[in-house]
Amino acid sequence: MNLTDDTARLSEFVLTKDLLVEGVHYLSDDPPEDVAWKLMAVNLSDLAAKGAEPVGVLLGYPLGDDAWDRAFLKGLGAACAEFACPLLGGDTVRGQGARTLSLTAIGRAGGKVPLRSGALPGQALWVAGTIGDARLGLEVARSGEGPEALLRAYRRPVPLIEAGMALGQIVSAMTDVSDGLLIDAARMAAASELGAVIDLSCIPRSDAARERTGSSRAARLEAATAGDDYALLFSLPRSVTPPVEAKRVGWTETGFGLRLIDAGESVPLPASLGWEHGRD
Amino acid sequence: MNLTDDTARLSEFVLTKDLLVEGVHYLSDDPPEDVAWKLMAVNLSDLAAKGAEPVGVLLGYPLGDDAWDRAFLKGLGAACAEFACPLLGGDTVRGQGARTLSLTAIGRAGGKVPLRSGALPGQALWVAGTIGDARLGLEVARSGEGPEALLRAYRRPVPLIEAGMALGQIVSAMTDVSDGLLIDAARMAAASELGAVIDLSCIPRSDAARERTGSSRAARLEAATAGDDYALLFSLPRSVTPPVEAKRVGWTETGFGLRLIDAGESVPLPASLGWEHGRD
Repeated sequence: MNLTDDTARLSEFVLTKDLLVEGVHYLSDDPPEDVAWKLMAVNLSDLAAKGAEPVGVLLGYPLGDDAWDRAFLKGLGAACAEFACPLLGGDTVRGQGARTLSLTAIGRAGGKVPLRSGALPGQALWVAGTIGDARLGLEVARSGEGPEALLRAYRRPVPLIEAGMALGQIVSAMTDVSDGLLIDAARMAAASELGAVIDLSCIPRSDAARERTGSSRAARLEAATAGDDYALLFSLPRSVTPPVEAKRVGWTETGFGLRLIDAGESVPLPASLGWEHGRD
Repeated sequence: MNLTDDTARLSEFVLTKDLLVEGVHYLSDDPPEDVAWKLMAVNLSDLAAKGAEPVGVLLGYPLGDDAWDRAFLKGLGAACAEFACPLLGGDTVRGQGARTLSLTAIGRAGGKVPLRSGALPGQALWVAGTIGDARLGLEVARSGEGPEALLRAYRRPVPLIEAGMALGQIVSAMTDVSDGLLIDAARMAAASELGAVIDLSCIPRSDAARERTGSSRAARLEAATAGDDYALLFSLPRSVTPPVEAKRVGWTETGFGLRLIDAGESVPLPASLGWEHGRD
């Protein structure tokens, strides 16, 4: 069973539900305010991929450590304010062991709701946002050493809500890149019954990431398989330029599976294309 | 923070989110199919209290033991079919330790959505369903001995969806009795800025419960503070008879707090009125 990336459509609303597990999706010593932010961000990113405007969230929360709970709720309130997305309700329980945080986010869809499965052959694949920052930020969090910009990308990812709303009405297919560009591109291609080509020379990376690990093929391949970035991957006819800042990273083709190139040269696929749920 | 009993209203929809925690809300050796049923039932009971018709659910699920997961999902499928309420999406994670199961249920509201806070002074308080069975069923589950009807009330509670839909359009206030009749009546009274009187001689109990523990005041008081029953408590003008099977258990009054009587005699309130969230 893999329910992830599923959003449900209900009349003019889009609903999504993403969980964060302590020790799996965040570190036990991550600041609770940042964990709250991330819980909001990962869910709102799912809405962004549907071109939906956030309406509100429901929280499922395991009460435990009073100070942690207070800081978390303060952080959630701040994130709700930042994203203009109120807490509508939810449930609290007495927690035990590793926390499982659950959020359901509700968004209002635009006239068109893009699917992951809507790509057509011969379309251009684009990415809005940068790739690979969050994984490097996780290393910064673990080691306690490294640039703030990367740490922030890991702890406080920003869902591309406005970009998603602008893109939602014109793209053929869209998904967020929460699990890694390669795996999410492969899923989009499979859902659309197509093949896809990703050009490693076009991966959008931040200045901070390039400074940190350089621009070797290995560094770019690592970025392309890193999760937690919440960029948007979408397909458009070749003649169309996206109305938001984005980078063209490849194209769809008839056939099956994912191919990798690096400035024209064919590159073998890595053993893992990204994060696979249920194997975490 | 207590988000429980909160449902959110969104256009014509009602949303609720209830969690079940292993070892808190169900026993580790409860059959997974029954746990799935209960997760559905507790959420649909929240919708029933709003007079809403179930539309669908989103699941947040911690994968762990393959056999348990398969049985759970089979049970969830059966419950979805039974209640005509499809699984619309959700998220799976790799679980650790005690399971936290999360469900978001979406219902379509009728023309009127009753609140817990809508009771008026001098109204009759009614209960649809029986009280106290689930707690006795928990004892049966723990001891392995006792009537199937009580065990079933604990493991497979039936949300009063149709009764809720019929009542939703006429009641002044309604809530489900998930935490105990006394505590839920006290909450309804407080939310309505009223006092309430519950008559212990009128508590609706099943034949199986009466056979199990008799009809002493202590037995009735135990039933009135027992949780997990998913009956409906509602207020109506004294002149109105509910259109579903129900028992009149008391009335509202101006003032504050809860009073108990037993066939005219005043009875002191017990130390605990029921299950309090965050203290479980």
